[in-house]
Amino acid sequence: MMNQTTAHRLLGALLLLFLWVPTAQSAFPVERFTLANGLTVLLVESHSNPMVEFRLLTRAGSAYDPNGLQGIAYVMGWMANEGAGELEAQAFQEKLDFRGMRLYGSTSRDYLKYQLTTLSRDLDEAFQMLVDAVKQPRFDAEPLARVKRERIASYEQSREDADTLADEALMQALFSNHPYRHPVGGYPRTIEKITPEDLHRFHQKAIRAPNMVLSVAGDISLKKLKSLVQQHFSGLSPDPGPFGAPVTRTLPLQQAGFTQQHIHKQGPQTVVQMGWMGIDRHDPDYFAVYMLNHLLGGGGFTSRLTQEIREKRGLTYSVHSYFVPWEGRGGWEVGMRTRNQSRDQALALARAELAKIRHEGISEEELSQAKKHLLGAFPIMLDSLSKLASTWSIIGFYKRGWDYLERWPERVAAVTTADLKRVANRFFNENQMVAVMVGPEGVEQKISKANERDSSPKAGKYKH
Amino acid sequence: MMNQTTAHRLLGALLLLFLWVPTAQSAFPVERFTLANGLTVLLVESHSNPMVEFRLLTRAGSAYDPNGLQGIAYVMGWMANEGAGELEAQAFQEKLDFRGMRLYGSTSRDYLKYQLTTLSRDLDEAFQMLVDAVKQPRFDAEPLARVKRERIASYEQSREDADTLADEALMQALFSNHPYRHPVGGYPRTIEKITPEDLHRFHQKAIRAPNMVLSVAGDISLKKLKSLVQQHFSGLSPDPGPFGAPVTRTLPLQQAGFTQQHIHKQGPQTVVQMGWMGIDRHDPDYFAVYMLNHLLGGGGFTSRLTQEIREKRGLTYSVHSYFVPWEGRGGWEVGMRTRNQSRDQALALARAELAKIRHEGISEEELSQAKKHLLGAFPIMLDSLSKLASTWSIIGFYKRGWDYLERWPERVAAVTTADLKRVANRFFNENQMVAVMVGPEGVEQKISKANERDSSPKAGKYKH
Repeated sequence: MMNQTTAHRLLGALLLLFLWVPTAQSAFPVERFTLANGLTVLLVESHSNPMVEFRLLTRAGSAYDPNGLQGIAYVMGWMANEGAGELEAQAFQEKLDFRGMRLYGSTSRDYLKYQLTTLSRDLDEAFQMLVDAVKQPRFDAEPLARVKRERIASYEQSREDADTLADEALMQALFSNHPYRHPVGGYPRTIEKITPEDLHRFHQKAIRAPNMVLSVAGDISLKKLKSLVQQHFSGLSPDPGPFGAPVTRTLPLQQAGFTQQHIHKQGPQTVVQMGWMGIDRHDPDYFAVYMLNHLLGGGGFTSRLTQEIREKRGLTYSVHSYFVPWEGRGGWEVGMRTRNQSRDQALALARAELAKIRHEGISEEELSQAKKHLLGAFPIMLDSLSKLASTWSIIGFYKRGWDYLERWPERVAAVTTADLKRVANRFFNENQMVAVMVGPEGVEQKISKANERDSSPKAGKYKH
Repeated sequence: MMNQTTAHRLLGALLLLFLWVPTAQSAFPVERFTLANGLTVLLVESHSNPMVEFRLLTRAGSAYDPNGLQGIAYVMGWMANEGAGELEAQAFQEKLDFRGMRLYGSTSRDYLKYQLTTLSRDLDEAFQMLVDAVKQPRFDAEPLARVKRERIASYEQSREDADTLADEALMQALFSNHPYRHPVGGYPRTIEKITPEDLHRFHQKAIRAPNMVLSVAGDISLKKLKSLVQQHFSGLSPDPGPFGAPVTRTLPLQQAGFTQQHIHKQGPQTVVQMGWMGIDRHDPDYFAVYMLNHLLGGGGFTSRLTQEIREKRGLTYSVHSYFVPWEGRGGWEVGMRTRNQSRDQALALARAELAKIRHEGISEEELSQAKKHLLGAFPIMLDSLSKLASTWSIIGFYKRGWDYLERWPERVAAVTTADLKRVANRFFNENQMVAVMVGPEGVEQKISKANERDSSPKAGKYKH
């Protein structure tokens, strides 16, 4: 019976793999070209909806903020629809509004992103607005003052948000003296200082063709896209400038021992986060890390942390783990919320689970189930123009290779239990981590076996 | 010049309308059938992705919670993947996980919704799980105890969230003695009391074929869907039972005068919300209300409230208005966050803007721009299988008519300035409203003209 089931599963996995084998006609067609100045352009042509999605990424994330002006990349992103060329903020936004176009900027640690959604009917006009936003932002004093006030207000507001406080403390502990350390949005004292001149200086370094990727999906032909891009972007500087190399990979990153800090905040629950150094986008263990994170706490009902902390003991509503592979190494983190008196127990359980995985590894059965889950969920990652444009922009920016989506299923399928064991040994050192708790101080803790039983769903006043 | 521009705009609008004129071959094809027991089934067939999206709505939202058991519909939704038929919670969730299927329930005021996403490869197995979740939920004591603890913890957590506190206070003020009054998730004291027997009783009333709509989008044929539905759902009760009629429309709803309440909460910002009674889904003024709300604060950069409160005075980062058309009349609300000392000014500005629109109406130019925006944004509402399945489920549940999407653009285009004036007179009575503020008490207020100028982006320390 067991053998039959296993055989059935293997057959299923093989059939699935067969479906994904790349052929001459790719299952994930993308057209691409590069301008003489180095700008990379990607297109997924699709005429099922009369819409076009654009994503333009450039290497000018918060890691490139000048010291003392932390948050300037974020402010530049926020200003993307606050006036460009001849149009002041009000006129620019009205023009967008009146066509139902959406154009805005946003910022991550590595890149600044412009995002445009338009009906194909308005293609030329919309593209012109993207071009103006990218090449000729105005950074007028009045909208800048408003944007700065908004960012400062949202910073102040977020002082009441336990998750934000824990995130920030964890990043500071993991990335001391590293450009990934500060919040993408900066600090009030640095935001205050930003002037239009600062923004124009930063913009001049940020908009360099070789550091940029334009990803497009939707109702537009390659010929039309080429003509638009050549007309408007061939004049961009071919000099990569000071942001040409991701300097962030060169810095030493390490934690010494296990450290824990507590941030006081009143309330019935404590946010518990724990982190350690993970990988960059080019790490050869990427797919093994991806798989191991999924098994640890990356999603679904059956992750190890969900089973141990939520299902068996009911200590939290949700516990997640995630890793952030940047151009430089990013964090790998576990996060949850518990009642205050369970926080030490929950943290101890998370550390114990990491140690257990490192010592015992992952079984063939568990790995095979995880593969089925990930391969099954794969098409959902790409079921809209917006997701296609975004996914390809990331692949282009991080140079993951043009066969990345094509080969994704086979690479997931190729991960072995030995890979997981090796990766767990490399990363799951429960004595080389940083933990942060945000909640009231001095709460009586439950860790004894007897008390543990009290907080289980099988006992106590909820028993029926 | 102005005339030419206007002519150009009109031409654009006319061309757009022409594109949307319904033809024999609908632009929004939906296949539909009804079982003998009254279950309505809708299908948008699309084979571009190997996926199928299901939405099953039934009239069993929180408005149907028995008194004293507020939150039971919410808990029933939450329990949708916590075990059904032969499978206990753990086994049920593993089965979902291992195929990468997503199945869960959620609850609104009017309906309880089951949502399933699956690869078409796993169609039969996935549909069987949906069927089991709908027809044979287990409501086992152990997962129920966990779900209740989670809901109570999230309720407690949300006591720290100013927006939640303001929402709840507003609903209580607008809907005294009405089943829409209580939070969808109930209260800790009512959640505590829910037993498996209560859930089975509620389930027995909730799952009635004539009160249900199944909406499907994706990689499945009509023939296959018919066969699945007939096999599994033709045995559902044809008796609409106690939830057969939306009783909620019969209750009187009104506010007397303008009332304002303050909920104390420490912090640098105050949440300001203001609400009044809006419309139900069948109101003949639906499209005029939709348009007027868009102009007031429904989206985009150019809404009246955004202009007056954010752009001109910089008092808030974002101000929104929205209306919720339920089976019974729902609220129409304005919400924002301001610095504490600006809260009275911000509220006064919002009330003044409502009065201004009521007295002066909306200009032809402004209306024409809003139409362009809404018609331009329309395709974005339907650009994925998930959005298609959800949109059709709502159209089916609220009986909006099978030509609803087809005729949406022409109905938006048909709204006149006279309609807006009439609707503003009907709803924008700034002296018949409820306002709620959540923030510190006793903050010194700025309302004088002089102080108002101080808080404008044109003056003060941000001036460059």
